[in-house]
Amino acid sequence: MFFASDNTGPVHPSVLEALSAANEGYLPSYGAEDAMGRVTASLREILGAPQAEVRLVATGTAANALLLATLSRPWDTIFCHELAHIEQDECGAPEFYSDAKLTLVNGPDAKMGPEALEAAITASATGGRSVHQVQAGPVSLTNVTERGTLYTVDEVTTLAGVARAHGLPVHMDGSRFANAVAALGCAPSDLVRDLDALSLGGTKNGCMGVEAAVIFDPEKAWEFDLRRKRGAHLFSKHRYLTAQMEAYLADGLWLDLAGRANAACARLAEGLASVPDIALMHPPEANMIFFEAPRALHAALHAKGARYATMAPLDGDGAARIGARLVCDWSAREEMVDAFVEAARAG
Amino acid sequence: MFFASDNTGPVHPSVLEALSAANEGYLPSYGAEDAMGRVTASLREILGAPQAEVRLVATGTAANALLLATLSRPWDTIFCHELAHIEQDECGAPEFYSDAKLTLVNGPDAKMGPEALEAAITASATGGRSVHQVQAGPVSLTNVTERGTLYTVDEVTTLAGVARAHGLPVHMDGSRFANAVAALGCAPSDLVRDLDALSLGGTKNGCMGVEAAVIFDPEKAWEFDLRRKRGAHLFSKHRYLTAQMEAYLADGLWLDLAGRANAACARLAEGLASVPDIALMHPPEANMIFFEAPRALHAALHAKGARYATMAPLDGDGAARIGARLVCDWSAREEMVDAFVEAARAG
Amino acid sequence: MFFASDNTGPVHPSVLEALSAANEGYLPSYGAEDAMGRVTASLREILGAPQAEVRLVATGTAANALLLATLSRPWDTIFCHELAHIEQDECGAPEFYSDAKLTLVNGPDAKMGPEALEAAITASATGGRSVHQVQAGPVSLTNVTERGTLYTVDEVTTLAGVARAHGLPVHMDGSRFANAVAALGCAPSDLVRDLDALSLGGTKNGCMGVEAAVIFDPEKAWEFDLRRKRGAHLFSKHRYLTAQMEAYLADGLWLDLAGRANAACARLAEGLASVPDIALMHPPEANMIFFEAPRALHAALHAKGARYATMAPLDGDGAARIGARLVCDWSAREEMVDAFVEAARAG
Amino acid sequence: MFFASDNTGPVHPSVLEALSAANEGYLPSYGAEDAMGRVTASLREILGAPQAEVRLVATGTAANALLLATLSRPWDTIFCHELAHIEQDECGAPEFYSDAKLTLVNGPDAKMGPEALEAAITASATGGRSVHQVQAGPVSLTNVTERGTLYTVDEVTTLAGVARAHGLPVHMDGSRFANAVAALGCAPSDLVRDLDALSLGGTKNGCMGVEAAVIFDPEKAWEFDLRRKRGAHLFSKHRYLTAQMEAYLADGLWLDLAGRANAACARLAEGLASVPDIALMHPPEANMIFFEAPRALHAALHAKGARYATMAPLDGDGAARIGARLVCDWSAREEMVDAFVEAARAG
Repeated sequence: MFFASDNTGPVHPSVLEALSAANEGYLPSYGAEDAMGRVTASLREILGAPQAEVRLVATGTAANALLLATLSRPWDTIFCHELAHIEQDECGAPEFYSDAKLTLVNGPDAKMGPEALEAAITASATGGRSVHQVQAGPVSLTNVTERGTLYTVDEVTTLAGVARAHGLPVHMDGSRFANAVAALGCAPSDLVRDLDALSLGGTKNGCMGVEAAVIFDPEKAWEFDLRRKRGAHLFSKHRYLTAQMEAYLADGLWLDLAGRANAACARLAEGLASVPDIALMHPPEANMIFFEAPRALHAALHAKGARYATMAPLDGDGAARIGARLVCDWSAREEMVDAFVEAARAG
Repeated sequence: MFFASDNTGPVHPSVLEALSAANEGYLPSYGAEDAMGRVTASLREILGAPQAEVRLVATGTAANALLLATLSRPWDTIFCHELAHIEQDECGAPEFYSDAKLTLVNGPDAKMGPEALEAAITASATGGRSVHQVQAGPVSLTNVTERGTLYTVDEVTTLAGVARAHGLPVHMDGSRFANAVAALGCAPSDLVRDLDALSLGGTKNGCMGVEAAVIFDPEKAWEFDLRRKRGAHLFSKHRYLTAQMEAYLADGLWLDLAGRANAACARLAEGLASVPDIALMHPPEANMIFFEAPRALHAALHAKGARYATMAPLDGDGAARIGARLVCDWSAREEMVDAFVEAARAG
Repeated sequence: MFFASDNTGPVHPSVLEALSAANEGYLPSYGAEDAMGRVTASLREILGAPQAEVRLVATGTAANALLLATLSRPWDTIFCHELAHIEQDECGAPEFYSDAKLTLVNGPDAKMGPEALEAAITASATGGRSVHQVQAGPVSLTNVTERGTLYTVDEVTTLAGVARAHGLPVHMDGSRFANAVAALGCAPSDLVRDLDALSLGGTKNGCMGVEAAVIFDPEKAWEFDLRRKRGAHLFSKHRYLTAQMEAYLADGLWLDLAGRANAACARLAEGLASVPDIALMHPPEANMIFFEAPRALHAALHAKGARYATMAPLDGDGAARIGARLVCDWSAREEMVDAFVEAARAG
Repeated sequence: MFFASDNTGPVHPSVLEALSAANEGYLPSYGAEDAMGRVTASLREILGAPQAEVRLVATGTAANALLLATLSRPWDTIFCHELAHIEQDECGAPEFYSDAKLTLVNGPDAKMGPEALEAAITASATGGRSVHQVQAGPVSLTNVTERGTLYTVDEVTTLAGVARAHGLPVHMDGSRFANAVAALGCAPSDLVRDLDALSLGGTKNGCMGVEAAVIFDPEKAWEFDLRRKRGAHLFSKHRYLTAQMEAYLADGLWLDLAGRANAACARLAEGLASVPDIALMHPPEANMIFFEAPRALHAALHAKGARYATMAPLDGDGAARIGARLVCDWSAREEMVDAFVEAARAG
C-alpha cells in the first residue's frame, strides 16, 4: 500500500523500451539529435503553440527554476501560493537561479484567487515605481496544485488576466500537468493559452527523469539555453532524455497514464470518504488527496504496511487528528487502493 | 568513423540492463534506496576511503560545480589550468555555484606544474592577508587532462603538497577518472589519496548520465546535499542513477570499459603517427589525442564521413595546418580506428 | 512642518566639525587610521562587549545586509517581522548579499511575539533536517520597529532565547538604536546582551552617512571584512566615516540627539491625540508615530506645507480614512511640532 | 614624504565648505534634492552628452561594479587588462554584482592593444555562438591605467571600435579620469565619445567619497537605480554626495586639482630619472609612477619617513631590485617631492 508519492513508482515499460531503442551507435550530443526536433514538433502540436521552444531537463525543480529565472530579473518578486512547490520544497532553487524573491499569496485549497493575486501585486507596487521595493515579476501557478486540486481553464485565464493587466508574465508549474489535463478533460492548448512558460512534467507520470521546459516566446530560448548550461542541466547524452519524452508523448501515453493515476485516486477518495473518522481536507480532483484521521488510525495503517506522509509525526503528542497525503501514480492498482480503504475502515 | 567525443556513443548493455532490473515496484526516492548504500560502500572500498561520502548527479559539470562550491567561499579563487573544463566548457557553472573566481595556471600538455601552481598561489596572496584581493581557494586538477595527457600519482601528490602547504583543498575533475586509472595502471586509491573531493565520471565511459561526487571529509556532505537540492540536481527517482553507477562499478566494468577506450586510442595514435603530414600535439596517454594536419587532409577525412572536432573552421582561410581532437569511448571498434588511419594515410 | 523621515534633516554641527578636524594631512586609508581604534574601544565600552569587532559602513541597508550575510548560509531563511525594513524597503539587498530567504512573522505593532517566532522556526524545520526546505537561519529584530514601537530588554531577551533554543543567531536592525535606548532608559549593554550582530545607526540621528556594524563574535569579523570589500562598501578615505562616528559617540551626543527626537515626537503624539478625527495607530514610543485621519485632513495639512508620507495616495478615491507616518529627528523644533498640531486641529 | 596613494590625503577645502553649505534644513532624500539636477546638467555639458544619466555612489568599486553589472548579463565575460583594478583590487566585486567572468588581456604599460583585445574577444567566441562558453560582454578600459599611463583619445576610439565591431559595450574605469583629461589636454567629451558607461572619480582627487556613474544610454538608468539600491549604495542623506560633486565640478576645480597632482608627479619623475640606480618602469604620464630600485635604497627611504608601496616585502631575501609605486594627489607639495628626490639621491 504505497501512496507516499508519485516519484516512488517504476517507469512505464514503453519509456524503458525507448531508452533501449535509442541506444544505437553514434549521435550528436547536447540535444542536437534528430529526435529532439520531433519532440518539439509534437509538443507544439499538443499545446497548440507553433512558435514555442522546448528544452528538456531531468528534474522538475530545474524546469521551474530555470524558467522563472528566464522570466524575471534579479530585483523582481515572483507571485505564488504559499504552498507552492517553489516555495516549500525546492530549498530556494528558484531564488538561487533567478535572484528574485517570492511573494506568497493565500487562498483555500492551495489556489490563488484573482482578488488575492491582484492585492499582492498591487501591494508590491504601492506608490508607483519605487527603487526601495522589489519589483513585480512573474506569476507562477501550480496545476495540479500542491493540495491535489485544479485550476480550471477559466481560472487560469482569469489569473493570467490579472498578471497581464500589470504586464507580468505567467508560468505554470505543471509537474502534474498531465493529471490536470486528464482530470479537466480539456484540450492541453486551452490550459496553456495564456502562459509564457510551462514546466511539463514526465518524471512523476511514468518517466525516469525528464521534464519539458516550454518557452512560448522563442526569443527567450537562447537565454534559457545559457541558463541551463550554466546551471549544469544540459545533458551530454541528451538522447536519453529525448527518448523518454518522445515515448511519453507518443499515442497519448502521457494522458493515458495520468488518467489511470487519477482514476485510482478517485477510487481511493471515494472509499475513504465513507470511512467514519476520516475527513478529506480538499476536493479530490486529480491524483493526490489529503485527509485527516485520528493519530491511532494512521499508526494502525502504517503498522499494516501503508506508506504515506503525515503532516505531523505519529509518535508526537500533539493534536489527536493528523493530516496526511496520499498520491497515486500510473502504476497504482485497484487492489492496492481497495486494500488501503479496507485497512482504513478496519482501523 | 566517429571520434567527436566520448559522449556520442551508446550506453553499455550492462548499464541498460541495470535500469530495467531497478524498475520494479515502489522504492523511496531522493537517494534513500538501499542500492545507494551499496554504491557508497563500493566506492569507499575502491578508493580506499572508508569515511568518504558519495553523492550522485547526472552531469559532470554538476559534480564539478557543486564540489568546488562546497570547498570554497564566495571570495575565493580556484586554481586550475587555463584549458580546464571548468574554465573552458561549463559556461561559468563553477562561478555560478561557488561565487568564486578562477585563477588560470599555464603549463604544457594541459598540466599545471608545481612551480607554476606555487607561483599562482603566492601571487594571489601577495602582501599577506588583504581584503582587496580574492583569497586563495581550492586547487582543481583535471585527470585525464583536456589534452588527453595524465597526471601521474607522483605528480598529483606533488601538486596536492603545494596546495596543502598553503592550506588549500584539492579537487580532481575525473570525468575520465577511469581512463586515467586504467592508463596509469595504478590503484584508484593511489590517485585520490591527497584529494578533498573527486568528480568520478560515468557518463563518458558507458553510462547514460551519472557522475559520483566523492567527498572525502564526511562533515562536508550535508552542505553538498543542500547545494545539490538547491541547484535542482537531486533526482526524485534516484534509483536510476544508482542503478547505473552500481552496474558501472560491478566486476570492474568501469576499468574494463576505460581500458578498451584507451586501447582503441593508442592504436589510433600509433597509426596516425606513421602518417606523413600528421603530427601528434601531445603525448597520447589515455583515450583522447590531438593532432595537426593540413586543412585539406581534414576536409578529405570529413568528406569520407569522419566526425571529429577541429580547432579552427575548415572553410576559413587561416593557417595551413589545423589542430584537431579525436576521442575514443568504450565502443570504438578496431575496424573503425583502422579505417580512419587508412583514410588519413590516403589523404 | 517636515516629518517625512529622519533622513531629511541636517547633520549635527559637532559631526560636521569633526569632519573638518579630520581633514588634516596624510592618513592611512581603509580604516587603518588610529581614530578607528578609538571608535571600536568606545563602542565596546558602551555596549559592554569587550570582544566585539566594529566596522563602519555608510548606509543602514549595507550594515543589515552584510551582517545578515555573515550570520547566514545561502540555504538559510532569515526570520523577521513582515514589516521589517529588510523585507519592505531594501529592494532585496539582504537576499542579494546573503543568498538566503526571508520568512515573515506577524505580530501587532510591528513586533514579533515569541509564540509567533517559535511557530515560524518550528514550521521551517518540520520533520527535522530535510534537504528539500531552506534551513532555519538568523532572527532579525528591528528596534525601534518600523511602526515606532519598542522591544523592551525583556522582550529582546525572550525572543533571543527562542532563537538560541534552536541554535540560531540574532541580529538587531538598530538604525534607530539610539532612539530605542533613549526611550527605554536602559543601558545600551542590556539591549545587546543576547545579540550576535547589531546595526547601530548614525545617519538618521545627526550623522551624514555612517552606521556601525557590530560583530559580537570576533571570529566573524574577517568574513565581514571580505564581504564589505566585495560589496564595495569599504571606504578608502575611511577617516571621514570614523570622524562622524567618533563625534556621534562622544559625550553621549548620540543619546542626547535621540532624546530630543523622542521628546519632539512625544509632544507631537500628545498633541495629535487630542485632535478629534485623528487616531494614533500604534503606541507612540520613540521618534516615529502613525495616525489615521480623514483624507480631507491630510489634504489640508499638505496644503499648509506639511510634509509626511501617507499610506495611500491622497488623490485616490479609496477609503475615507488614511494612515500616515510622522518622524522626528534631532532637529525637530517644538514650534514646528506645535504648528503641526495646530494645523491638524484647525483641519 | 607621503606617496602611498591618492586616497591618503585630505579633502579640498571647497568640498568641505560645500558640505557645510548643504547642511541647512530639510531636503528630500535619496537623490531627489534639486542640486542633483544641477550635477547631472553639469556633467552632461562637460561630457558633451545631453542624454546621459548620472548617479552618485561613494566608492569607485561601487561605480565600476554597478555599471559593469548594468552592461552585462550573468553569462558574459568582461574584457579588461590583467592589471585592471576590477581584476586586482576589488575582491571580486564586479563578479559579485554582475555574475559575469573577467577575461584578462595582456599588454605593456597596463594597456590593452587592439590586436590583443580583438584576439581575446575572438577566442571567447570560437566556433560561433556556443552554449558551452561564457559569452563576450563589455570591454572595460582603465584611464589613467593602473601603471600610471594613459590611453589617448585615439587609442580609446580604436579599442571601442574593436568592441563595437563585436557588438560589445564599453566601460571606462575613470577613478582618475580627471588626471587623464588634464594630462591629455583633451576635451572630456573626446574621451567619452565612444563609451557606454563611465566611472568618474572624485574621491582620489580632492573629494571625501563620491564617484559619478555616468550612463550614456538613459534607458539603462532604471536598472542601475535598482542595482544601486539592492547593492545598498543609495544614500538617504544624498545631498552630501551631491554637494561634493557639485563643488568638485564647479569652476573646473576637478581639472585644476588633477593638474596639480600631475605636475607634482612629473616633477617627481623627472627628479628620480636623474638618480643613478633608479629606473622608471613605465612612461610617467599622469599622477602615478613606478620605479625600480635596490632593496637597500627602498629601506633607506622608508627609514627617512617615506611612505609608499613596494611590490615585494623589503625584509624578504628575493630579488636585489624591487619595484615600487608613488602616487601624488592634489595636495602633494613641491617641497615634499623635492625632499623625496633628494633622499633618493642621497641613498
